[in-house]
Amino acid sequence: MFVTFLTDFGLADDFVGTCHGVMKRIAPEIEIIDITHGIEPQGVLQGALVLANTLPYLPEGVHLAVVDPGVGSERRALALRGGDGRLFVGPDNGLLIPAAERLGGIEAAYEVTNRDYALEPVSATFHGRDVFSPAAAHLANGVAVDELGPAIDAGSLARLDVPQPEVSDHRIRACCLYVDRFGNMQLNLTRQHLERLGIEPGRQVELELASEQYYAVAARTFADARGGEIILYEDAYENIAIAISGGSAAETFSARPGVEVRIRVAD
Amino acid sequence: MFVTFLTDFGLADDFVGTCHGVMKRIAPEIEIIDITHGIEPQGVLQGALVLANTLPYLPEGVHLAVVDPGVGSERRALALRGGDGRLFVGPDNGLLIPAAERLGGIEAAYEVTNRDYALEPVSATFHGRDVFSPAAAHLANGVAVDELGPAIDAGSLARLDVPQPEVSDHRIRACCLYVDRFGNMQLNLTRQHLERLGIEPGRQVELELASEQYYAVAARTFADARGGEIILYEDAYENIAIAISGGSAAETFSARPGVEVRIRVAD
Amino acid sequence: MFVTFLTDFGLADDFVGTCHGVMKRIAPEIEIIDITHGIEPQGVLQGALVLANTLPYLPEGVHLAVVDPGVGSERRALALRGGDGRLFVGPDNGLLIPAAERLGGIEAAYEVTNRDYALEPVSATFHGRDVFSPAAAHLANGVAVDELGPAIDAGSLARLDVPQPEVSDHRIRACCLYVDRFGNMQLNLTRQHLERLGIEPGRQVELELASEQYYAVAARTFADARGGEIILYEDAYENIAIAISGGSAAETFSARPGVEVRIRVAD
Repeated sequence: MFVTFLTDFGLADDFVGTCHGVMKRIAPEIEIIDITHGIEPQGVLQGALVLANTLPYLPEGVHLAVVDPGVGSERRALALRGGDGRLFVGPDNGLLIPAAERLGGIEAAYEVTNRDYALEPVSATFHGRDVFSPAAAHLANGVAVDELGPAIDAGSLARLDVPQPEVSDHRIRACCLYVDRFGNMQLNLTRQHLERLGIEPGRQVELELASEQYYAVAARTFADARGGEIILYEDAYENIAIAISGGSAAETFSARPGVEVRIRVAD
Repeated sequence: MFVTFLTDFGLADDFVGTCHGVMKRIAPEIEIIDITHGIEPQGVLQGALVLANTLPYLPEGVHLAVVDPGVGSERRALALRGGDGRLFVGPDNGLLIPAAERLGGIEAAYEVTNRDYALEPVSATFHGRDVFSPAAAHLANGVAVDELGPAIDAGSLARLDVPQPEVSDHRIRACCLYVDRFGNMQLNLTRQHLERLGIEPGRQVELELASEQYYAVAARTFADARGGEIILYEDAYENIAIAISGGSAAETFSARPGVEVRIRVAD
Repeated sequence: MFVTFLTDFGLADDFVGTCHGVMKRIAPEIEIIDITHGIEPQGVLQGALVLANTLPYLPEGVHLAVVDPGVGSERRALALRGGDGRLFVGPDNGLLIPAAERLGGIEAAYEVTNRDYALEPVSATFHGRDVFSPAAAHLANGVAVDELGPAIDAGSLARLDVPQPEVSDHRIRACCLYVDRFGNMQLNLTRQHLERLGIEPGRQVELELASEQYYAVAARTFADARGGEIILYEDAYENIAIAISGGSAAETFSARPGVEVRIRVAD
């Protein structure tokens, strides 16, 4: 049985390794796949989007995700049963919802309250170790999800506001959702948004970032542009993204998640 | 059989992957759990504390740890037999001792000298690969620990000075042991130290860091404080730590391990 | 069956985890060993050298490597059969060649074109996920390498220029190939180059970096030098490297890969 694991814990500390240990003590036979632990600290929206983008590429199993700024508060711990027998474990802050909905929807939701499936004592600040990892491991061991706690109304689950672009026939006002290691800036846009303005590979566009204007070209891939050229392309997760051929867009534009980007067709 | 693995190697280079490879060539069936490889370079004390904090959460097995500024010198290579059949492998610089003592004590100590269980040739600078990983893998394969080399007196093992706080009825002089990804500063204090001053959740305290005074509040968890408030709390490893709700204490205070922190009850 | 995996993807994003997921969906029984994902972005030469240095320490299997600035261009996707039944998968940009040649040479080369062994659709920017990981997983599952696509002439493979030192009897002009976490600077030199100048452990040498002169000492290991002393030593991969005992050479010299280093025997 696979457990996939996504957090904002980073790898500099022991948090990820300790959670692996907790799961392996409970369920030595499971195999854990680390999706990433590089979600920005407390970046619930970023974590939710990365989880939804990546799970289609991962084996079915128990999907554990922990980005949990509300640890120790009244926010609930969740276990969700999704389509295809997938199970989700994490905090009730919206983190799990986009992924669960992309993969067949939420068939049932449970609040994880049964202390038989948690470590004792449960600390106030590390439920990843004490609540979520044990719950995931017990599910992977075959414990029925309704053993973890009472069923709750899926309509009561916390949800995130995913920022929506403003798209007219002439202009788009979008924002940066994510910046990757290569400095590519993922936007909250899909190819369909660009097509409404007639923007297709080869077309020149104008970008406005931080009140500065730039020319860019819509392209299929980095290799279609000259070195240093700014390109607008559909990334491997079918989001529109900005890159600089042979460079780092995020560095050039000092861009971070949340930055506004305006796009229009060049004259 | 599990091998747990902690180092200061980082993940940017190949060092960790190469050690995994060495172990898997010797013992293909073992399962390696990476506790962390983010110990600060040559941070023996930090490595020792993290190992002692985390091993109770990890499966029993062979516990390999390498933070080894003395590689190539006369410092010995060690294998220790601890309680519950746990085995420890690493350099004789104090790294293994706090963990071994927390988990039932050191039952026997051996110097790893038998070249039949090392790679040939042994390099002068990477005993993690050439000595410690092979030793751990052979132990995990069932080689008896006394095969690795001669028994040595546990009293002769190098030990670390763990900095101790000064605690009176009115003041505490502590130091920062560790800073994590979230900017939380772990101190060399436990709840018992705070209780001596009557500091319990809800109580206001004064902190002095780098000659600056701050108000803070003792709290159970981050969620008990308002955004931006400095809190003093018992962390998940039962150390007292300093955090800023919704922020980074380490960044705000430019704090690093070793920084002195003074605490007294606010008037 | 083992799959070893080396990339420039870093661990902050999901790229590595997603590739693990893709492989595990195709070949659940394989075991993936991550050599490193910390190759500098698009550092093909660095990736090639690290792969060649480390593979002798890793189990035989399928060796997947992706550092791929030409993704989406006409560069070919490769599968190579090497000595001892090792298989290599990666882009045709020279990345795989030094490792394959060190491990018995290239017995046969194939262009990976068979879409039955790729994900559908193949994105324009993430062949690590859509082409290379599936190919590696299918090979690990026992698919014959010539199933992946047509045989190609090994003489047609792209090759890297590995910078060569200039060595006379009195002077060496070398360059830095790699800087590791500890700040050690690996040079494009071996012990044989130093021996031509009569440089052996204990001998004083003069270094010139960025037009500055430094004294250094040839040493066997860090522990043979006094704190702060600059040493020239043979590293664990049998390259000559520069270190500062108890410090970081790369930080002191602001050194990066490509920096020129001149060496001569001190008067």
